Amino acid sequence: MSNVITSISELRAIVKSWKQEGKSIGLVPTMGFLHEGHQSLMARAKTENDKIVVSIFVNPMQFGPKEDLASYPRDLEQDLQRCDNEGVDVIFHPEASEMYGIDFSSSVDVTGLTEELCGKSRPGHFKGVCTVVSKLFNIVQADRAYFGQKDAQQLAVIRRMVCDMNIDVEVVGCPIVREEDGLAKSSRNSYLSPEQRRAAVCLYRALQLGQTLVLEGERDSLTVLARLKNDIEREPLAKVDYISLVDADSLRPIEYVEGRVLCALAVYIGRTRLIDNCTLSV
Amino acid sequence: MSNVITSISELRAIVKSWKQEGKSIGLVPTMGFLHEGHQSLMARAKTENDKIVVSIFVNPMQFGPKEDLASYPRDLEQDLQRCDNEGVDVIFHPEASEMYGIDFSSSVDVTGLTEELCGKSRPGHFKGVCTVVSKLFNIVQADRAYFGQKDAQQLAVIRRMVCDMNIDVEVVGCPIVREEDGLAKSSRNSYLSPEQRRAAVCLYRALQLGQTLVLEGERDSLTVLARLKNDIEREPLAKVDYISLVDADSLRPIEYVEGRVLCALAVYIGRTRLIDNCTLSV
Repeated sequence: MSNVITSISELRAIVKSWKQEGKSIGLVPTMGFLHEGHQSLMARAKTENDKIVVSIFVNPMQFGPKEDLASYPRDLEQDLQRCDNEGVDVIFHPEASEMYGIDFSSSVDVTGLTEELCGKSRPGHFKGVCTVVSKLFNIVQADRAYFGQKDAQQLAVIRRMVCDMNIDVEVVGCPIVREEDGLAKSSRNSYLSPEQRRAAVCLYRALQLGQTLVLEGERDSLTVLARLKNDIEREPLAKVDYISLVDADSLRPIEYVEGRVLCALAVYIGRTRLIDNCTLSV
Repeated sequence: MSNVITSISELRAIVKSWKQEGKSIGLVPTMGFLHEGHQSLMARAKTENDKIVVSIFVNPMQFGPKEDLASYPRDLEQDLQRCDNEGVDVIFHPEASEMYGIDFSSSVDVTGLTEELCGKSRPGHFKGVCTVVSKLFNIVQADRAYFGQKDAQQLAVIRRMVCDMNIDVEVVGCPIVREEDGLAKSSRNSYLSPEQRRAAVCLYRALQLGQTLVLEGERDSLTVLARLKNDIEREPLAKVDYISLVDADSLRPIEYVEGRVLCALAVYIGRTRLIDNCTLSV
């Protein structure tokens, strides 16, 4: 059985004992409601480290005042089962008050990379992510940390932060895991009604269209983006938040499709905001 | 002889070997131009740790655009001598480009504590301090880090950051070291002409007056502050930046002198900005 720890000092003590035994540590930071995407991170972490820690913490700091913090799906029992199945050594599941004590007033932020894409629609989101991930890095002192490529901007921001701040951890990005029809696995998919669930495939369909257009020779960003927007808008339940073609490293919008290009999008299906992305093969 | 290291990866390798040998590490972060204040930090670090690292880095990020980054005093040869005398194991002396690479875009910040005192006159200063100190903590992975009480607000901010961010280091604050006439040792004292040097004692004299007033029973902050301001303004070369009575923990201004009260001031002597402080015995 995985060991569920809620106290930072208790986790620190376990980490210290592992370090003394020379064990390597893999960290999988999550907000719980684990799905096959998270499981792929745990499985990868398990093959590369002696010990693995999964954190389950719905981080208030990364939610905006009008976002879904209160309703964010939770199912600890099922999460523990999934962690057990993957051979997780420790589940770190702190209360918000353990992570953010009275008088908490620090933050970690990354500029530039956070300005486009989700950063535009979710001001303060990445500051919340960077802060909590820094804290987890400091507590767990992992050798490797695992993040899904579905949150492509988050992954880029964390890589930047780790590099800038000289954090001694290897950041491992893992491929998106999808449902059979292509919808990217996400805890937020649980918000969708059956009808919305069928509509949600429009994100993946748009990414595929983008790939097809580029393979057929289209290089003009605006043309590609207009075609994708059109495609998504055929779906009456969908409302585009953004569709972007950006340089895969700087995340800056591009005019012309060349090099490593990330096609990223966020779409509301009803009130549920879903994101997806792919790197275009040019 | 102390070992001078300019590369982060080289320092990391040394730290790793020390850790493997189970050595404890003390870190003394400085901007160089070392004086007896710094030496007291090194001496303390030496008694409490197996290995000590002194960083010498004039951190551009903590200087405002109109501040004294370019003219900040430097004397590496004398610094190395002082480090040798104190038995420092490694001097970390990186170039700015080693600490802040191309595309550097991360920062660590603390709100609240940074709003009063020097934070008012030096916007962005503590963000620069927190960022570089976080980087040093990540690189050196020290057991203990030593800071002077002269920079009282800096010490409070770093303690807050270490607590909030779960950084695994013990922050050790060390007493102010003074010249014979009471002037607090500071690298910036080297800017002073002989006449200004004599005038600079007004900071310490004001702190002593504050202590006397409180010992005599004065409890009203505004009265104490007015008396101190008057006292400093008797010195024609001095111009008050701020004089404050604040709660020693929250650094919030107080109306009434009780509990642990910090009396802190910043005074321009010519173009040189000096700071000093004391905790009042009530």
